[in-house]
Amino acid sequence: MTQQEKAPGQPRFSAERLGRYAQEIMHARGMSLEEAKTVADALIWANLRGMDTHGVSRIPMYMRIIDKGEMDPKAKLQLLHDTLAVKVIEANRSAGPLAMGWASDLAIDMAQKAGIGMVMVRNTTHTAALGIFSEKVARAGMSCIAMAASRPNMAYHGAKAAGVSTAPFSLAVPGKDNTPIILDMASGVVSMGKLLQYKAKKQTLEPGWALDDEGNATTDSQAASIPLPLGGPKGSGLSLMFELMTSLPLMNPLIGHFFSDEHEAQRHCQNAMIIAMDIYQFCSKEAFQKEIVQCIQTLKALPVDEKAGEILMPGERGYREREKRLIDGVALPPSLLKTLNEVALSLNVDPLI
Amino acid sequence: MTQQEKAPGQPRFSAERLGRYAQEIMHARGMSLEEAKTVADALIWANLRGMDTHGVSRIPMYMRIIDKGEMDPKAKLQLLHDTLAVKVIEANRSAGPLAMGWASDLAIDMAQKAGIGMVMVRNTTHTAALGIFSEKVARAGMSCIAMAASRPNMAYHGAKAAGVSTAPFSLAVPGKDNTPIILDMASGVVSMGKLLQYKAKKQTLEPGWALDDEGNATTDSQAASIPLPLGGPKGSGLSLMFELMTSLPLMNPLIGHFFSDEHEAQRHCQNAMIIAMDIYQFCSKEAFQKEIVQCIQTLKALPVDEKAGEILMPGERGYREREKRLIDGVALPPSLLKTLNEVALSLNVDPLI
Repeated sequence: MTQQEKAPGQPRFSAERLGRYAQEIMHARGMSLEEAKTVADALIWANLRGMDTHGVSRIPMYMRIIDKGEMDPKAKLQLLHDTLAVKVIEANRSAGPLAMGWASDLAIDMAQKAGIGMVMVRNTTHTAALGIFSEKVARAGMSCIAMAASRPNMAYHGAKAAGVSTAPFSLAVPGKDNTPIILDMASGVVSMGKLLQYKAKKQTLEPGWALDDEGNATTDSQAASIPLPLGGPKGSGLSLMFELMTSLPLMNPLIGHFFSDEHEAQRHCQNAMIIAMDIYQFCSKEAFQKEIVQCIQTLKALPVDEKAGEILMPGERGYREREKRLIDGVALPPSLLKTLNEVALSLNVDPLI
Repeated sequence: MTQQEKAPGQPRFSAERLGRYAQEIMHARGMSLEEAKTVADALIWANLRGMDTHGVSRIPMYMRIIDKGEMDPKAKLQLLHDTLAVKVIEANRSAGPLAMGWASDLAIDMAQKAGIGMVMVRNTTHTAALGIFSEKVARAGMSCIAMAASRPNMAYHGAKAAGVSTAPFSLAVPGKDNTPIILDMASGVVSMGKLLQYKAKKQTLEPGWALDDEGNATTDSQAASIPLPLGGPKGSGLSLMFELMTSLPLMNPLIGHFFSDEHEAQRHCQNAMIIAMDIYQFCSKEAFQKEIVQCIQTLKALPVDEKAGEILMPGERGYREREKRLIDGVALPPSLLKTLNEVALSLNVDPLI
């Protein structure tokens, strides 16, 4: 059963309608129509794939960080470093999907010429779901590696406090029939969004998911505030490496200054990296697609674990959800709808009804 | 307490003596002196860092796969694809460290010229510890991403059988004072080596570590045979993506044909990828090193979890162990020493005593 089927009473909106609404809000808040559409498309991408924590539910947060001057709706992107296979974008605190979208285009273009292309993105804001950008690269017939670094919110292994972030990581390859295989994962055992869901529903957490403010392990969702890393040192190690591989060479460190008294040390800020690899320069597209079908068939033919119910490929659930939501629309919880309409009203945007 | 301190009675050998012994064995088994040294160095690297599962304990396995024709000690490496920023090595079943060592050199060289360099390695054998190669790239002042794919031995999430491998992944960046930060992890909750250790000591496993031959969860180390992936779909998704990003574009699929009746479908074989990124082309080395020190200090200043005892950086334990073992020598369990000396004897190599 999908998330939406569990909430049959919620109002639903077509992706087109919801996207237009998100675009109107971002435009009214200062972005150009085109930039507002890029941001709206990223939010709707997540909603359609069932990642509601990365969909229009982010709009109130975007408004807050614009108010605080942490996201700049008028910012212009710049190229700080521009070579054949490596580029660096200064995002100047623009909305994440703007720099990330440009970064994936540039990476694809460089990979077509040089076989591989890497774009580093400095000083951006919430990158949205990384899978949007790795999918774009994979649809261009390339493999993709993408990562992002953010402010500490997750425990570092061995510490009783947040030291790294639930940083995302995405790997993608072209699939058959224009259906890329997309792994889009975070480095925590559980996402911040899931912790908040459990908190809202007053549900008990599983052991090993989170710490409380004092850094003690807890299964009480009301007390939990710090998610634990996936596999202890592995998850927190991954998250730290994303910081060391993006924020540090970009001279925009997020961890090292977070606990200092420096001005803006705790502002919302992200750094990212996206690499495109043009694999069809050294292998045949037809042969690759034949092998990917064979690999998927082999895994799907394994004996199924009854508890899991079925054997899925990375991203498969998202494709399925997208098919459904393109027809059924995207359901919004009434409280979210109310909040969004308050935002819309304050900006003279027609409410969703 | 280190692993070695827990086993005070075991015979110890200097890294130099053990390396010469490993080199003599590999040379006697058909490799050139130089190639045998490269393989021996890789094994000793792992032993010194405390990764004994990837050290000289692998020699009997190497002998077996040479006997079966799965590793070719006389194989020559070839370049199948040779461009400015991307190269493909055909390893022709040579010993893993040969192709991987060359791959890291080529990746560094390309990154110096193009900013980034990727080498794909086809049809290699046990790559040894991936950290050897990512460390090499990081010591050249570059960031590194490395991954390898192998035959199925780990459960695919949702399946009651092995479908993917406990595939390794390594990320590295240059550190201060020539001490790179190296994350070297596998995609399983627990390594095959650790399962075997528990089995040998008849210890009870932790829940969530492994399945038995029938695909049922078990904590009985005698029954356990299939390790479970790290974080369910995350770990098995990572491992699958490594296959899709290396084996498939290299046209050397390991998963898709493993369960077929095809000739050699189940042979020992690996594919890998290593990417070097010359970060100092767009950031100052001094500034980067200053920030990495600041980041490490920040994390180490967090309140310590008593259970973990201390806050460590990725690879830090390995450096410490290396310092100790360079002085104390590497301890070998008597049973391993006996097996190695039997191998040596059969090849007219002087035994270790």
